Amino acid sequence: MYTALFKSIDDRVRLTDEEKELCKKFFKPRKLRKRQFLLQEGDVCRVNAFVEKGLLRSFTVDEKGNEHIIQFAAEGWWISDLYSFLTGEVSDYNIEALEDCELLLLSLPASEELLAALPKFESYQRMLLQGAFIAMQRRITSSLKQTAEEKYLKIVEDYPQITQRVPQHMIASYLGITAETLSRIRKQLIQPDNPLI
Amino acid sequence: MYTALFKSIDDRVRLTDEEKELCKKFFKPRKLRKRQFLLQEGDVCRVNAFVEKGLLRSFTVDEKGNEHIIQFAAEGWWISDLYSFLTGEVSDYNIEALEDCELLLLSLPASEELLAALPKFESYQRMLLQGAFIAMQRRITSSLKQTAEEKYLKIVEDYPQITQRVPQHMIASYLGITAETLSRIRKQLIQPDNPLI
Repeated sequence: MYTALFKSIDDRVRLTDEEKELCKKFFKPRKLRKRQFLLQEGDVCRVNAFVEKGLLRSFTVDEKGNEHIIQFAAEGWWISDLYSFLTGEVSDYNIEALEDCELLLLSLPASEELLAALPKFESYQRMLLQGAFIAMQRRITSSLKQTAEEKYLKIVEDYPQITQRVPQHMIASYLGITAETLSRIRKQLIQPDNPLI
Repeated sequence: MYTALFKSIDDRVRLTDEEKELCKKFFKPRKLRKRQFLLQEGDVCRVNAFVEKGLLRSFTVDEKGNEHIIQFAAEGWWISDLYSFLTGEVSDYNIEALEDCELLLLSLPASEELLAALPKFESYQRMLLQGAFIAMQRRITSSLKQTAEEKYLKIVEDYPQITQRVPQHMIASYLGITAETLSRIRKQLIQPDNPLI
């Protein structure tokens, strides 16, 4: 535990050993088995979760019962419904473990105390959010600009640690295309020496 | 100048008068006439711009020459290509004034100096980015989940200060639908007592 977290922090701001010990006090470790939920829609998102091990997805369900995947989170990533977490309003999202997971959880009070106790954590959060904002902006650009095939090739290239671990119908849901469309795209792309597929 | 900026900051963290004076030293005011560009694709985005007055859009152009609008920014909002700004790589985006604008510009060195000189500015930036991230996540959810009509009604409801000021074809571009589809939706929605349209 804490290996991936301190790597994530040290990649952005350097913490001393004392600061790392201080930091640990604010997190609560939690294990989640595959198919367990960290958040279910209708509940308030009480934690911001860092993934030490495993893989999760956040998704929402429309009126017809179709699932739409908003985010995947593997080792070294954060996942939550930030709006519900910050406002205390109920969430429309679900967060589910796709593999057995080891998480480090920050509650809102712990998060605020940590920000006050360790200004470097505020810098870390700002840098993280900058990265997340840029990734979101690229996803929106891609959704407006790229064909389904281009979107698929981009996610395979950018996130091999995700696309090799989740079923194809979830990739389709994340890309906003049907499983049938994705299956057709993959058939067209498959060549014996194509390393991407 | 600085009225909207200090409102935006004071809504999140309180600055003293001395801190406001300090803050001003890092910004560079700039006026932009309608149709002028703050950034053109192929250039590096050298500034993060706060909008004191006016309205801008950021957009990208695909291989067929179609424009895709990524963001609008009116009074009280920030606009830039954060990736190009932070990395110094050339940008794929354009930022254009849709009205005469008064901007407050932060260069990357000025931004870093301001963050070091005024820790409250780091808190402000973190909170801004949280809000921007949440807005982006909702836009992705909407793009996956909502019909074109629902998307249109949502933007009219959420951003009247934008939708009343830009031409309909730009709203269509922002929503990722054709101008014809938007025109059809608006015709279906128009009723004499509908306050939204």
